[in-house]
Amino acid sequence: MPKLIEHAEAGPEVRAVYDAIKAARGVPDVNNFWKALAVHPPTLRRTWESLSAVMAPGALDPLVKEMLYLAVSMANGCAYCTASHGAAARARGMTEAQYGELLAVVGMAAETNRLAEALRVPLDPQFEA
Amino acid sequence: MPKLIEHAEAGPEVRAVYDAIKAARGVPDVNNFWKALAVHPPTLRRTWESLSAVMAPGALDPLVKEMLYLAVSMANGCAYCTASHGAAARARGMTEAQYGELLAVVGMAAETNRLAEALRVPLDPQFEA
Amino acid sequence: MPKLIEHAEAGPEVRAVYDAIKAARGVPDVNNFWKALAVHPPTLRRTWESLSAVMAPGALDPLVKEMLYLAVSMANGCAYCTASHGAAARARGMTEAQYGELLAVVGMAAETNRLAEALRVPLDPQFEA
Amino acid sequence: MPKLIEHAEAGPEVRAVYDAIKAARGVPDVNNFWKALAVHPPTLRRTWESLSAVMAPGALDPLVKEMLYLAVSMANGCAYCTASHGAAARARGMTEAQYGELLAVVGMAAETNRLAEALRVPLDPQFEA
Amino acid sequence: MPKLIEHAEAGPEVRAVYDAIKAARGVPDVNNFWKALAVHPPTLRRTWESLSAVMAPGALDPLVKEMLYLAVSMANGCAYCTASHGAAARARGMTEAQYGELLAVVGMAAETNRLAEALRVPLDPQFEA
Amino acid sequence: MPKLIEHAEAGPEVRAVYDAIKAARGVPDVNNFWKALAVHPPTLRRTWESLSAVMAPGALDPLVKEMLYLAVSMANGCAYCTASHGAAARARGMTEAQYGELLAVVGMAAETNRLAEALRVPLDPQFEA
Repeated sequence: MPKLIEHAEAGPEVRAVYDAIKAARGVPDVNNFWKALAVHPPTLRRTWESLSAVMAPGALDPLVKEMLYLAVSMANGCAYCTASHGAAARARGMTEAQYGELLAVVGMAAETNRLAEALRVPLDPQFEA
Repeated sequence: MPKLIEHAEAGPEVRAVYDAIKAARGVPDVNNFWKALAVHPPTLRRTWESLSAVMAPGALDPLVKEMLYLAVSMANGCAYCTASHGAAARARGMTEAQYGELLAVVGMAAETNRLAEALRVPLDPQFEA
Repeated sequence: MPKLIEHAEAGPEVRAVYDAIKAARGVPDVNNFWKALAVHPPTLRRTWESLSAVMAPGALDPLVKEMLYLAVSMANGCAYCTASHGAAARARGMTEAQYGELLAVVGMAAETNRLAEALRVPLDPQFEA
Repeated sequence: MPKLIEHAEAGPEVRAVYDAIKAARGVPDVNNFWKALAVHPPTLRRTWESLSAVMAPGALDPLVKEMLYLAVSMANGCAYCTASHGAAARARGMTEAQYGELLAVVGMAAETNRLAEALRVPLDPQFEA
Repeated sequence: MPKLIEHAEAGPEVRAVYDAIKAARGVPDVNNFWKALAVHPPTLRRTWESLSAVMAPGALDPLVKEMLYLAVSMANGCAYCTASHGAAARARGMTEAQYGELLAVVGMAAETNRLAEALRVPLDPQFEA
Repeated sequence: MPKLIEHAEAGPEVRAVYDAIKAARGVPDVNNFWKALAVHPPTLRRTWESLSAVMAPGALDPLVKEMLYLAVSMANGCAYCTASHGAAARARGMTEAQYGELLAVVGMAAETNRLAEALRVPLDPQFEA
């Protein structure tokens, strides 16, 4: 198991990021992901700043963004991220029916992605435009 | 390049699937993916029936489903599927701003998925519920 | 495009491997894979020796071994290997119907593999034995 | 851990699939994969029907099909599927020697697939036919 | 092919990033990667800033960092990144002999990574410390 | 859990490899990876011989080779290999600061690799040379 750095033992750069996460999310403590990433404070800080920017309100609905993050995490085979972004998506209102359909899309895409690559299908001209 | 089976040279099982795709989508011809998959008619038919069922109207908005399919295709590294589902998402109304944010989520998730796995982060108890 | 090292310009270590491949396979020239790998002669030699050992006659039928290699190459998304091992499997007798079923298994496994990981399914006790 | 839906608590659509699996396989209960997939009954049903069709007797020997499924599951890094299809292949007669050779092919293909992609090897003309 | 946004047609946010890249690298124009990423200016800017920070001088030798980037790009199967970081590593002094050994490590790791996962090898106690 | 074959129960071919590993590394016992791989003695022997050759002193510094192996293992998502090669890299002198930067490169490459593939960026002419 990796070392998880708690707030009490963290240096000032790590504490500042933890405090920013807790303030932004209104939570009493940060998730294990951040406590493990604190092994390298610059990566901790950069990852938090990038994630905040990417997930900030924009052209996509926040729930849609979370569902995209969840689906990609499933596709990439990250168990931790599937669990944490699944919880985040549910907290934003994802229903069981929506989760079921998302799962179906992830599974179906895995199959057609693999078939298209295996068959080395050439791009249709209209997709090149 | 794989063999692409055109309607004129296809057997009846393949033609029936091509006709169903053309009718459902209101298009004059099927994409290369289907013409390549026709090398195995049972897989062609099953894949079309499954895809139709998965992408049918349901709890998720059709555009959201297409964006999920696109994001997963990017994560799985399927160039053909990224191009075809990108076109499909645009046809359903995905704006350039939405595409840009989707791309950002795919990239960001690739990074945090990899970091979480590399650090072997243990699941937080609240994600186990 | 990578540099492809032809027999005429190769050093003695590379030539010896090329000659061994040509003799073992009864072909007038080696495939591009070997000509590209020749950029690092020790890796060329080691890869050929390992591949020969792995694909030698044994408990599995040679056609089955080639089909396993092909299916894994598809799963790993290697276009070159899918093409070259597809040709090798056909040379060993793989029929179109067998190819179609192999493709179906690769696609189906991609889907259930992804679903099982996404759902974080716990191992059944009988599989732990 | 995901929720596993037991027969006693399942709705009629899920029960029907469970009963079909038990009948087809002659087993007293379904595996955890199906109990986890039951979170989305349409995906449960579709996956079972597709899997049954793909794995039905055909041009490939049933043991060969199971070994292909196992090898692809290994390549895709699915621990659950590797365990369950490993058990299924053994039940169909895979010997330890065959398993060892399958493992060797999966490992060797992982290496040459990666090398061929890393070197961006161009397809030989004879593979394009 | 994706749209590539040239400096002359770019908006001010994109131009500012292009100018920063050209200044940092002492090159007359940016690579296609940046011209394609300019489809979403915030992702373009964030990616450049993150990449600059990650690749800045630090505890690792700049050539080692480039070789790590190259090896990971090979492992992830990114043809573009393999080509561009291969060129970058050579520009920093990577010799052909070093490239050959890097290639050998990437191939060998692909094989043992897959074997370790396929065998579901339990962690040795000393690795848990 | 896979069967782990201990020295006392191993046959002569396996024992010979175990003894070679112990002698080369100066350790009292081999890691679980080897004990699991011993299920197929020829693959055990071949893997050890290949690994020894690949990791032998050469044009790359031994620590650099270990860090490359570690980074690729992270990219390939192998938890066991990430732990074992992390320990090996530390044993060869990798500092915490170096580990942090390696982690940052692995994460950053995951993101740009994915973005470059998703955007289907065409190779710049200078990378084709």
